[in-house]
Amino acid sequence: MSALERALTRVAPLDAAAMAAARERQGQLTKPPGSLGRLEELAVQLAGIAGTARPLIGDRVIVVCAADHGVAAAGVSAYPAAVTAQMVHNFVRGGAAINVLARQAGARVVVADLGVDHDFPRELPVVHAKLGRGTASLLLGPAMTRAQARGAVEVGIEMVAREAEQFRAAARGDDVLVVGTGDMGIGNTTASSAIVAAMTGAPVAEVTGRGTGIDDATWARKVAAIERGLEVNRPDASDALDVLAKVGGFEIGGLAGVMVGAAAERLPVVIDGFISGAAALIAVGLCPGVRDYLMAAHRSVEVGHRVVLDRLGLRPLLELDLRLGEGTGAALAMQLLDAAVAIHNGMATFDEAGVSGPA
Amino acid sequence: MSALERALTRVAPLDAAAMAAARERQGQLTKPPGSLGRLEELAVQLAGIAGTARPLIGDRVIVVCAADHGVAAAGVSAYPAAVTAQMVHNFVRGGAAINVLARQAGARVVVADLGVDHDFPRELPVVHAKLGRGTASLLLGPAMTRAQARGAVEVGIEMVAREAEQFRAAARGDDVLVVGTGDMGIGNTTASSAIVAAMTGAPVAEVTGRGTGIDDATWARKVAAIERGLEVNRPDASDALDVLAKVGGFEIGGLAGVMVGAAAERLPVVIDGFISGAAALIAVGLCPGVRDYLMAAHRSVEVGHRVVLDRLGLRPLLELDLRLGEGTGAALAMQLLDAAVAIHNGMATFDEAGVSGPA
Repeated sequence: MSALERALTRVAPLDAAAMAAARERQGQLTKPPGSLGRLEELAVQLAGIAGTARPLIGDRVIVVCAADHGVAAAGVSAYPAAVTAQMVHNFVRGGAAINVLARQAGARVVVADLGVDHDFPRELPVVHAKLGRGTASLLLGPAMTRAQARGAVEVGIEMVAREAEQFRAAARGDDVLVVGTGDMGIGNTTASSAIVAAMTGAPVAEVTGRGTGIDDATWARKVAAIERGLEVNRPDASDALDVLAKVGGFEIGGLAGVMVGAAAERLPVVIDGFISGAAALIAVGLCPGVRDYLMAAHRSVEVGHRVVLDRLGLRPLLELDLRLGEGTGAALAMQLLDAAVAIHNGMATFDEAGVSGPA
Repeated sequence: MSALERALTRVAPLDAAAMAAARERQGQLTKPPGSLGRLEELAVQLAGIAGTARPLIGDRVIVVCAADHGVAAAGVSAYPAAVTAQMVHNFVRGGAAINVLARQAGARVVVADLGVDHDFPRELPVVHAKLGRGTASLLLGPAMTRAQARGAVEVGIEMVAREAEQFRAAARGDDVLVVGTGDMGIGNTTASSAIVAAMTGAPVAEVTGRGTGIDDATWARKVAAIERGLEVNRPDASDALDVLAKVGGFEIGGLAGVMVGAAAERLPVVIDGFISGAAALIAVGLCPGVRDYLMAAHRSVEVGHRVVLDRLGLRPLLELDLRLGEGTGAALAMQLLDAAVAIHNGMATFDEAGVSGPA
């Protein structure tokens, strides 16, 4: 059994008893029942994931997967492909948006090269896990082989397994490691829109947005490229690995693996925007049980993101008109998860505070 | 000239040059222009308030104003009026939701008694500024006199002036003090709905919600009470102090004063939910220029909040189905403001990072 199948068999349902106990505690805190809305839901979900009524967060890590895309040569982005590698260096030096927001959220950033078209020095502190130097162009055939697609997913699974192991070696009691997802890859909204169209059946034009900020002519070229890619490759929606291989990207496979791996390790995953959403469709396609471990950080302005969240049945925590990726939304949402846990564990109960309940 | 008039004359427009410089800086950071959406807008607004292109946040304070309401005796709430005083004690002991969330946001909580129907010991660490022991019932006549309404607003102005003075005595350079607003008062969604109906002309049933969680019969009683209160008192929408006096509350006046005072001191105010929104209608009614200093933390599930935000032309930062008050949404939103400032000051520029711009 491969690393992928092993992980898939380990994905179990949430702990219903822990969730019921967490709901009961929420009802005893000095506030009208339900008055903290989504924060209460987050605490209950986290209890179900951690398997305890009073979960605590021990650490936070955001895994940023980077790769290049053959389709970028078709002129579908506002930025040159070289920016993928340049931004990896920016991540390592700590100057990118995700570095700033992760610091604020108390999260570490782990950067992984799943297939950037650039030779990074081995000593660069990134996870070196190249499956190719960018994908092939989906206009001409599959973006990658099925073996590469599986390999990308397994890189994600193994990264989370490693993080979980290190965390547990140092953690106190039931503390939880929160995982976030982020992406970097010029051209990856094109691959993501293709995945979303393939997995949901939605018309390409309805799930294709402006990415980094393209004009009308580039947008029309992008839609045509995706339509052509779907026609040439005919991905099978019932086989998520087939969709990933034919129209996806290495970093998207890596992120799907991060999600599967986190669910297998019973860790919550805060998923970022549109690229992470496309990866979530692949992850849930591989194993529907993964869905309950996901928390949607935000709704991006990228038009297809709404379709993704609807299909996954996830409500975003934030709507801040973000469209940067990198895990920036995930970092912001982690602070809401921290708030939910702080409320759950830190508030006084009606009894403790001598406050009257409803009349 | 009274404290109110003095403050009103000091409210000045935002600094357009600082905002233009802040926008220019946002365009140089290593991200597609506009891709951090609302975070970029927040940084630019804060620059305009602080009068500098690179504002920094020095401290955060959440002012929670508490008072009781005569109309509570008409059975419009799910909770007994005694809960207002009990919750003030809970705030002081640090066990309430606002204490937990303020700690997480690095904010101090200042609790003020504007008119709770309870004798607190003088040594209790709250701002003792009682204007009465609860308002009179708006069913029978004005909730308070015009002098009391003015007095409540001036308490808020003076609290902010004191905070600003203390902050500036200790602050480095241009650092900004961020002010948040919060409320406690059984019955205060009734007063707030009455204010919103009076100030906007919206039908009472469309701006009256479930408060702490009332049933259909109580809701119908609440709507009838507000309609009766508006009929008996005929508040003048063009005179915000008249509306506050006739159908408002002491804590709502205090919060309106906090907003006017913050604008006078050139400080940003993160306003919480529906009660703070009603107070904002009063503050902006007193002085339209206050509006530019406001940041709407969230959209509450309280139905009238949408009408308030539309009228003020404010977009909420969060939609988390909150309906607790106390300043809980403001505390959560302060972390987004911190994130906006961290991005604005902490990210690398394209030049610094050696990253290519658009092709």
